[in-house]
Amino acid sequence: MSKEQLIIFDTTLRDGEQSPGASMTKEEKLRIARQLERMRVDVIEAGFPAASNGDFEAVRAVAETIKDSTVAGLCRAFDKDIARALEAVKPAKSGRIHTFIATSPIHMEKKLRMSPDDVLVAAQHAVRFARNGIGDVEFSCEDAGRSDLDFLCRIIEAVIKEGASTINIPDTVGYNVPEQYAERIRQLRERIPNSDKVVWSVHCHNDLGLAVANSLAAVMAGARQVECTINGLGERAGNAALEEIVMAVHTRQDVFPCITRIDTTQIVAASKMVSSITGFPVQPNKAIVGANAFAHESGIHQDGVLKHRETYEIMRAEDVGWNANKLVLGKHSGRTAFKARLKELGIEVESEQVLNVAFTHFKELADKKHEIFDEDLHALMSDEMVPPDDEHYKLVSSMFHSETGEAPQAKLTLSAGGTEQHAASSGSGPVDATFKAIESVAASGSELLLYSVNAITTGTDAQGEVTVRLSKDGRIVNGQGADTDIVVASAKAYINALNKLCSGQEKLNPQL
Amino acid sequence: MSKEQLIIFDTTLRDGEQSPGASMTKEEKLRIARQLERMRVDVIEAGFPAASNGDFEAVRAVAETIKDSTVAGLCRAFDKDIARALEAVKPAKSGRIHTFIATSPIHMEKKLRMSPDDVLVAAQHAVRFARNGIGDVEFSCEDAGRSDLDFLCRIIEAVIKEGASTINIPDTVGYNVPEQYAERIRQLRERIPNSDKVVWSVHCHNDLGLAVANSLAAVMAGARQVECTINGLGERAGNAALEEIVMAVHTRQDVFPCITRIDTTQIVAASKMVSSITGFPVQPNKAIVGANAFAHESGIHQDGVLKHRETYEIMRAEDVGWNANKLVLGKHSGRTAFKARLKELGIEVESEQVLNVAFTHFKELADKKHEIFDEDLHALMSDEMVPPDDEHYKLVSSMFHSETGEAPQAKLTLSAGGTEQHAASSGSGPVDATFKAIESVAASGSELLLYSVNAITTGTDAQGEVTVRLSKDGRIVNGQGADTDIVVASAKAYINALNKLCSGQEKLNPQL
Repeated sequence: MSKEQLIIFDTTLRDGEQSPGASMTKEEKLRIARQLERMRVDVIEAGFPAASNGDFEAVRAVAETIKDSTVAGLCRAFDKDIARALEAVKPAKSGRIHTFIATSPIHMEKKLRMSPDDVLVAAQHAVRFARNGIGDVEFSCEDAGRSDLDFLCRIIEAVIKEGASTINIPDTVGYNVPEQYAERIRQLRERIPNSDKVVWSVHCHNDLGLAVANSLAAVMAGARQVECTINGLGERAGNAALEEIVMAVHTRQDVFPCITRIDTTQIVAASKMVSSITGFPVQPNKAIVGANAFAHESGIHQDGVLKHRETYEIMRAEDVGWNANKLVLGKHSGRTAFKARLKELGIEVESEQVLNVAFTHFKELADKKHEIFDEDLHALMSDEMVPPDDEHYKLVSSMFHSETGEAPQAKLTLSAGGTEQHAASSGSGPVDATFKAIESVAASGSELLLYSVNAITTGTDAQGEVTVRLSKDGRIVNGQGADTDIVVASAKAYINALNKLCSGQEKLNPQL
Repeated sequence: MSKEQLIIFDTTLRDGEQSPGASMTKEEKLRIARQLERMRVDVIEAGFPAASNGDFEAVRAVAETIKDSTVAGLCRAFDKDIARALEAVKPAKSGRIHTFIATSPIHMEKKLRMSPDDVLVAAQHAVRFARNGIGDVEFSCEDAGRSDLDFLCRIIEAVIKEGASTINIPDTVGYNVPEQYAERIRQLRERIPNSDKVVWSVHCHNDLGLAVANSLAAVMAGARQVECTINGLGERAGNAALEEIVMAVHTRQDVFPCITRIDTTQIVAASKMVSSITGFPVQPNKAIVGANAFAHESGIHQDGVLKHRETYEIMRAEDVGWNANKLVLGKHSGRTAFKARLKELGIEVESEQVLNVAFTHFKELADKKHEIFDEDLHALMSDEMVPPDDEHYKLVSSMFHSETGEAPQAKLTLSAGGTEQHAASSGSGPVDATFKAIESVAASGSELLLYSVNAITTGTDAQGEVTVRLSKDGRIVNGQGADTDIVVASAKAYINALNKLCSGQEKLNPQL
């Protein structure tokens, strides 16, 4: 008997991007979208087009680029939001409108200030309006986990009549436990007369650490779409982790009545890409994608353990794409090899000009660190992909000096809007001195929320990838910079964050 | 009706410490144990005394120090292991022996090379032997999740007759799903005639992301002890996270038939301490203890969200100890304030001499960074707590210089076994140059596996805490160093790791 398909709906680019500090540029979203497509994700939620022009452009770019996955745009249950989302997903080969409205008493009363009857009418109208523009419409009951069951039945029956083909039941605040949540899905499916005409979907948050378990319990109760994110990224404690959902279903085929289309060997690459772009580290003990997930403490010498993998392993590391970190390029690699590897990594270069500049930088890097890994190329290309227009500040040159007993010194030459400026400062360390020197030119008045460094690859000549998170007037941006010199990488990251603060705009974030 | 108690058994110091790279010194284990006691953990598994002399000493030190929690020592089902564990936990006010043997066909055949009947006899003998030495004995069926149910019934009934008072059912390889696992606990409790005489315990691994859900499902099926770790640390993808188990039970008192004794306001401090000591970062989207767990993306301007916390919050950040990062000391703080704060943080200083040295370093730090937070004190004291005997290498002084267009330079003076040596090197960055300079003296031949930096507090003058993970001949050690100068912190961390490589020994790691 062939199994039913479990639809994997990835919302890394929408709910994941709403994590404080995880906002992404259009180019970054495109890179992730291509990786999701390569992984055979069924639906990619690319953003919330009404949030900002930047979000609209990003969703549209993903819709134009992606061919093998459905591209969804999120919108509130207002005509204006829906129209904007329809416009954004229009270029997609397969597009979806995902519209939502809150259905819990507390949200209807405190946030929407609408009666349940008004919410019902708004939902019907929204689905009808969306269906006039597109064939594939998903409807979500925000905070369904705390909504009245009778009211859920009424509103869902009504939107199915209007043509919604996927019904999503989010646990918006991560309050549910598996049995209860599964029971809710079961009851909805039983009580709603036309429930067999739609795909039931779940969207769980991880506040109590149960997002994956709640999603899987719902699958056992008949849900056939799971909304999830790479690395479990998302608001607060995040969403259900795609990698855990997929590998649980694949590993426990004796239990689950369905199977996904996912190419699991692409999971680790996707995880690393999302971590690198957002600057959110993956903890070593994270399931599936953590650095230790498949590692045993060395020094185990108990009989038989090393000889019989299955004694302690229920999955193989290579099935999720580990051990793929191989040396790919070196200082003797040519332009063709460089270009070919970028293509394999899904990094699309906009023009020959950008490629030429990137290749020059690749050669400089290869001179310094000899062995170039995929992660180095991702980091290198992150630097290249920022459109030059957005770069108000640039680092021209730098000098750092520190010595026991003296205050560390930084001297920088920056280009600010095309004009070269010199800056110098001392500080409590070379990074502090560098940031102070940059601020002596930029005077941004922003607050440093986070500073972190990760070696991109192993070995002492690895590049350091620095993430700097700045906050100003309630906005939070991440800047990234990579270099074999950690102080230079820090300067690049700080400048990258400042450039984002200069160019960015406010945007709305829906809660699901 | 008063609720039954759920016993929280923390194994951060045993299973957590077995994560590759997470090994801890005796002093580090003591600091964590004191924090666990302060948090009112019921049972602290302090280590595996037969693994090495170092492990034995650490368990013994925890047993001597901790008064309000039971201290458990793990041992295989051999007389020699059990005798060693009995000796280690002897000083404890309340001590426990935790003995285990594998019961799954694959483990009995491939690892133990014993028949089920022999395993049964060994288990009976082990529990009898342990009960002769101590009143509190826990028995674990290793790989119970894949063991035959009839055999489990036989062996458990037998060890209960021998006096085991806690029966632990580990899901050693993290293969179970909640319903199945709960059903197994339910059946064991029903079928074993004397099952009501013991506490049923669970120990779940997180390979499929289900450790917390499996543990909680088992609690619903009658388990009254959960084995867990801070931050979910542990072999591979780790164990069930203590903070998620505790907060799920506390938040969903409408569902769970039991309650814990845990002081939840100590959770964040415990999480930060474990992360800092092991060098394992906590990802921002980790439930409860991640930096974003209670954060909403700024820029939410939907009506009512900010005014009504409960719209999106099911727990309060302060209930788990967030917002406790307050300025505690500054450059004008005196010795008494310094000493008092260390005591409040549970950092016990061995002698007045150590305190004097630490206070001098505190004053130097306060000169450089002005505002001293609890995290700074933890980092400072980590540096102080390494007994001087173990420090073969010391950093005496350093100079770093880097400049655009030139290779970064490091010049160091090291003390090696009491003799000062000068070293200089260039490198691809100042950190690379520093490591090369150190290796020019130490010639350790070790491999750098991981290099990471985290700012301990926010602000540009924050200290950087660097973790360096080295591997040599199959051994893995973590070194830490903190300084306001990231290059100096890197040098300290590398030297700390080298000193651990010089002094450490091989040890055994059991699998549960």
